[in-house]
Amino acid sequence: MTDDRKVAELLRDMPTNWNRWGPDDEIGSLNYLTPEEVLRGIRSVRQGKVFTLGVVIGSPTGDPVWPGRSGATKLMTQDKGHYLSHKLQAAPGGLEYADDYITMFLQGTTQFDALGHTWYDDKIWNGYDAGTTIGGMDKASVLPIAQHGVVGRAVLLDIARHRGKPYLDRGETFGLDDLLSCAERQGVTIEKHDILILRTGWLKIFYEQGPAAFYGDSFNEPGLAFSPELVKWFHETEIPVLATDTIANETTVDPESGALLVLHNALMRNLGVLFNEILWLEDLAADCAADGQYAFLYAGSPLKVYRGTGAPVNPVAVK
Amino acid sequence: MTDDRKVAELLRDMPTNWNRWGPDDEIGSLNYLTPEEVLRGIRSVRQGKVFTLGVVIGSPTGDPVWPGRSGATKLMTQDKGHYLSHKLQAAPGGLEYADDYITMFLQGTTQFDALGHTWYDDKIWNGYDAGTTIGGMDKASVLPIAQHGVVGRAVLLDIARHRGKPYLDRGETFGLDDLLSCAERQGVTIEKHDILILRTGWLKIFYEQGPAAFYGDSFNEPGLAFSPELVKWFHETEIPVLATDTIANETTVDPESGALLVLHNALMRNLGVLFNEILWLEDLAADCAADGQYAFLYAGSPLKVYRGTGAPVNPVAVK
Amino acid sequence: MTDDRKVAELLRDMPTNWNRWGPDDEIGSLNYLTPEEVLRGIRSVRQGKVFTLGVVIGSPTGDPVWPGRSGATKLMTQDKGHYLSHKLQAAPGGLEYADDYITMFLQGTTQFDALGHTWYDDKIWNGYDAGTTIGGMDKASVLPIAQHGVVGRAVLLDIARHRGKPYLDRGETFGLDDLLSCAERQGVTIEKHDILILRTGWLKIFYEQGPAAFYGDSFNEPGLAFSPELVKWFHETEIPVLATDTIANETTVDPESGALLVLHNALMRNLGVLFNEILWLEDLAADCAADGQYAFLYAGSPLKVYRGTGAPVNPVAVK
Amino acid sequence: MTDDRKVAELLRDMPTNWNRWGPDDEIGSLNYLTPEEVLRGIRSVRQGKVFTLGVVIGSPTGDPVWPGRSGATKLMTQDKGHYLSHKLQAAPGGLEYADDYITMFLQGTTQFDALGHTWYDDKIWNGYDAGTTIGGMDKASVLPIAQHGVVGRAVLLDIARHRGKPYLDRGETFGLDDLLSCAERQGVTIEKHDILILRTGWLKIFYEQGPAAFYGDSFNEPGLAFSPELVKWFHETEIPVLATDTIANETTVDPESGALLVLHNALMRNLGVLFNEILWLEDLAADCAADGQYAFLYAGSPLKVYRGTGAPVNPVAVK
Repeated sequence: MTDDRKVAELLRDMPTNWNRWGPDDEIGSLNYLTPEEVLRGIRSVRQGKVFTLGVVIGSPTGDPVWPGRSGATKLMTQDKGHYLSHKLQAAPGGLEYADDYITMFLQGTTQFDALGHTWYDDKIWNGYDAGTTIGGMDKASVLPIAQHGVVGRAVLLDIARHRGKPYLDRGETFGLDDLLSCAERQGVTIEKHDILILRTGWLKIFYEQGPAAFYGDSFNEPGLAFSPELVKWFHETEIPVLATDTIANETTVDPESGALLVLHNALMRNLGVLFNEILWLEDLAADCAADGQYAFLYAGSPLKVYRGTGAPVNPVAVK
Repeated sequence: MTDDRKVAELLRDMPTNWNRWGPDDEIGSLNYLTPEEVLRGIRSVRQGKVFTLGVVIGSPTGDPVWPGRSGATKLMTQDKGHYLSHKLQAAPGGLEYADDYITMFLQGTTQFDALGHTWYDDKIWNGYDAGTTIGGMDKASVLPIAQHGVVGRAVLLDIARHRGKPYLDRGETFGLDDLLSCAERQGVTIEKHDILILRTGWLKIFYEQGPAAFYGDSFNEPGLAFSPELVKWFHETEIPVLATDTIANETTVDPESGALLVLHNALMRNLGVLFNEILWLEDLAADCAADGQYAFLYAGSPLKVYRGTGAPVNPVAVK
Repeated sequence: MTDDRKVAELLRDMPTNWNRWGPDDEIGSLNYLTPEEVLRGIRSVRQGKVFTLGVVIGSPTGDPVWPGRSGATKLMTQDKGHYLSHKLQAAPGGLEYADDYITMFLQGTTQFDALGHTWYDDKIWNGYDAGTTIGGMDKASVLPIAQHGVVGRAVLLDIARHRGKPYLDRGETFGLDDLLSCAERQGVTIEKHDILILRTGWLKIFYEQGPAAFYGDSFNEPGLAFSPELVKWFHETEIPVLATDTIANETTVDPESGALLVLHNALMRNLGVLFNEILWLEDLAADCAADGQYAFLYAGSPLKVYRGTGAPVNPVAVK
Repeated sequence: MTDDRKVAELLRDMPTNWNRWGPDDEIGSLNYLTPEEVLRGIRSVRQGKVFTLGVVIGSPTGDPVWPGRSGATKLMTQDKGHYLSHKLQAAPGGLEYADDYITMFLQGTTQFDALGHTWYDDKIWNGYDAGTTIGGMDKASVLPIAQHGVVGRAVLLDIARHRGKPYLDRGETFGLDDLLSCAERQGVTIEKHDILILRTGWLKIFYEQGPAAFYGDSFNEPGLAFSPELVKWFHETEIPVLATDTIANETTVDPESGALLVLHNALMRNLGVLFNEILWLEDLAADCAADGQYAFLYAGSPLKVYRGTGAPVNPVAVK
């Protein structure tokens, strides 16, 4: 077996949802979030507390990104200085204003992956040809996700707290058993169609210890590791969205096979599970630990980027 | 009175909320959206229907922007073509992926203005010096808004339908009476602390008739026009957010004074009302007209852009 | 004959230089500019007058570009304002500095086309597969041209003056006879391996009359029109570089066939003639008309952009 | 003496050329390059050999930049892939083309500094107020330099070879004596108004040993160090341009005072000497060492960037 067949081999007998919602589907497991499920999310709200889960864009200490991407560059196109230096004059009546401009990777911050973002065997989600990604995502782009909106009941599983540490270690993995035991200890039930939010504490390293500590000699995030039972559980529980406080939502290198990002293909490409990545969970998690409410409303629709491979979002959790 | 004193004159006796939430406040009327108000929003949900209110970014027909700004440029950094042309090789195991990059004005799509975005008399919201905008918003940037989140009960007032036309005309204005009569005819009550969403139909012109029809010889959007009673009503009703389907949320040129964007200063700079601009309201409005439910939950937090004058958002309305 | 076969048909019996400099060549007719030819250029200098032929980038009135491209966006990353607003502090000893950033199309100003920039029949210059352009020019990019440098004797042919008008009209064409009669009237000899610079006056319209006049309802620049004898003359005269004051160096729409930019394929793709476009020739041409010296040294190497389809240049003419 | 007064103290009695060419001058020592000097440059050409002195932009191994800047991002806007994936169709007649887009710091590659790029005591070149840099260089931008063109006789001083090493060490300095002894050993005379090109070999470290070796723990380039006699020599010899193969043309930290980039202020701000930075000199230097010809024609005009603090250039040396 050549190396680049490993993922295909691993996932050969794993379930898929291709064609489950027809040959033209581009939103996959987001189909689970029907109005009934939205109302289930609404009913989970108890206190009216709001948490925003995006990370800062253009942070003075830099933005955490997948290797090869770069952080945002934000620049003023005008500000009070332009008026002081006579480059601009006040508008009729006296109004002045500041304005700015950004260049960034669409997945260079808290974002949703398009379902077609990753693939193997030349097929993306629902069996569309990977060639449709050329020059922009014709199929399974982030746009249909953004048009639909992502609203439902979410459950936070605080894996780091469950393991009694401030953050998981580089490359540390966990699996289905950990999800279930963590939920049990938290006293929360993972219901069918729940948005699943996993906290590893990992992202904090970037901000508290700096890029060198975060990237290390070899980038290898902690996170969920592939197992057949994990994939089957996602399939059966019909999880619409997986969200974490890591760049890529799963451990970077599968410890068994050495393959990269197996769950991107097992869950996203094959099951149509939405990946919401790079969330800031520290404040939400501290609050959940304090009041014991780990289920809440999640509302967060990515920007409607035409043909985007993903798009930024600042999701809202309402407890 | 010189021309650039007009706004200062117009607003001389108008109410302000400066210092109402202390000298360090940067979120203004967003302070009204307490947990109680969030729960009021939650309670407005009846059916679980979700509408996303952002416009498409990087649309093939162009993006509607304020004159002087330009639309987004979105480019692939990698896609299947890169693998076909041997510029990239699959990752260990076989994963391949597409990625992209964008350059855009932060206010070049559906977005929230920072409270410090516009000013007169060298002072922005809460009295901060306009010089704090130089090189990036030190004060009253979009970041605190994005950290807080914008969640509450919203009311849609469909002014265009109220006037029996598909969209208001260039420069057509309306005022407080129209808001109230529209609400009455719609059978909806504007409650204290409601997010106010006004539909003019104007944005549709860009997409249906093209940029030439939208911009015209002289850019002059329809919208709310300044009046003392309007400002007082916003003040008394403690409206936290004003949102519309126009680029700038108000008529461009005040027909009385000729001043530009008077309400940006009267409502945003002085009262701290958040401006959420360039919303796509056509689908939501059609649905409201059909089922008569004009009040709903609004959840939409802009991206957390450091020192941003504004930031994109794809708000969610849940009916 | 289907429409997209027209260029292939037109050029079926036209000469090519493919393989003339071996199968690995990427600079085509630039090979003609040997040290001997460089010295010939040096010898053409008489007075020491210098003219720079680039257009302004980020001009306040906009930059003239091919439809679909956009002009440059140049923004300050820091300036004195940043020090005044305490966003920056002077470096040790007291130095302060200003810095800036640009986003632009590589062919959005005075530039050299890479030889592989345009093609038909899936083959670019020298027969390389057009698929090598995917994700960046693997072959016949602008880089080898920029590594080599473009230095030689140039001749200006002032076609507009020859025709007694300030600028040619939209879509106005000229041919080999015009080149020869213009040279004759100017009293200059076109020697083998001369860089050929043609002035139409067209670019002036953008700056003097504005974009609307320049682009018109249908973009159709004046310029050279395809003819078999013209192509043969370029082939025999071994012209290394064609340069003009238009966006695309030739009339946009071939009046005979309706095909777009036939000479890009006849001269650049097939003969390997370098295209240097969007030159500012007004000052040079006025001076040549005054002193009668129409031959001079040309020195202008594009930026060394890796895999670029083209790259900016500010060429120098030394009379 | 507070730290940020050191440069002002060091340069208190040093010569300046302010007002030498009138109160409106923006090109400083470039005024020395009269047509006579251009002809002197032309006469230095012996063999017709051409060397291009720019570095690669968007190099796959990254671009060497001043700390705080970032390298270029170059992306395709279209290529053969777009036609294969039906995102584009051939133009009438059959033409297809590739196109691309770049984002970069204007000083993020081989470039000329504008004379107003650095300053102390709130005054830039010729005494213009540093406030004129706000929002773009109103005065002493790179544009007048680019309009004028930089053509003249240049002399290469190969300091690294002179010291018998492949490249100078981090922070290694040299001074006027070294320039003179190096010239003497090379058998070349530095004439009045010569463009001075200094080779340290330093830039090679970036490409051969990588960014970590190049930047080190503390960025400190080798180069010329400030001394009163050096500044007086530049003043008397009327050097129009200083060019090197380092990012900033001088040693980063002055070993005597600890001040940053003293010569930027002593030579550029005060004398109006043009700084041409980040040159690729390896090929030129090897050739000069082989044939002993260290004087040649330099022709290299930066791009005409409106209000630019600097602009890229790919200079040409003709021996």
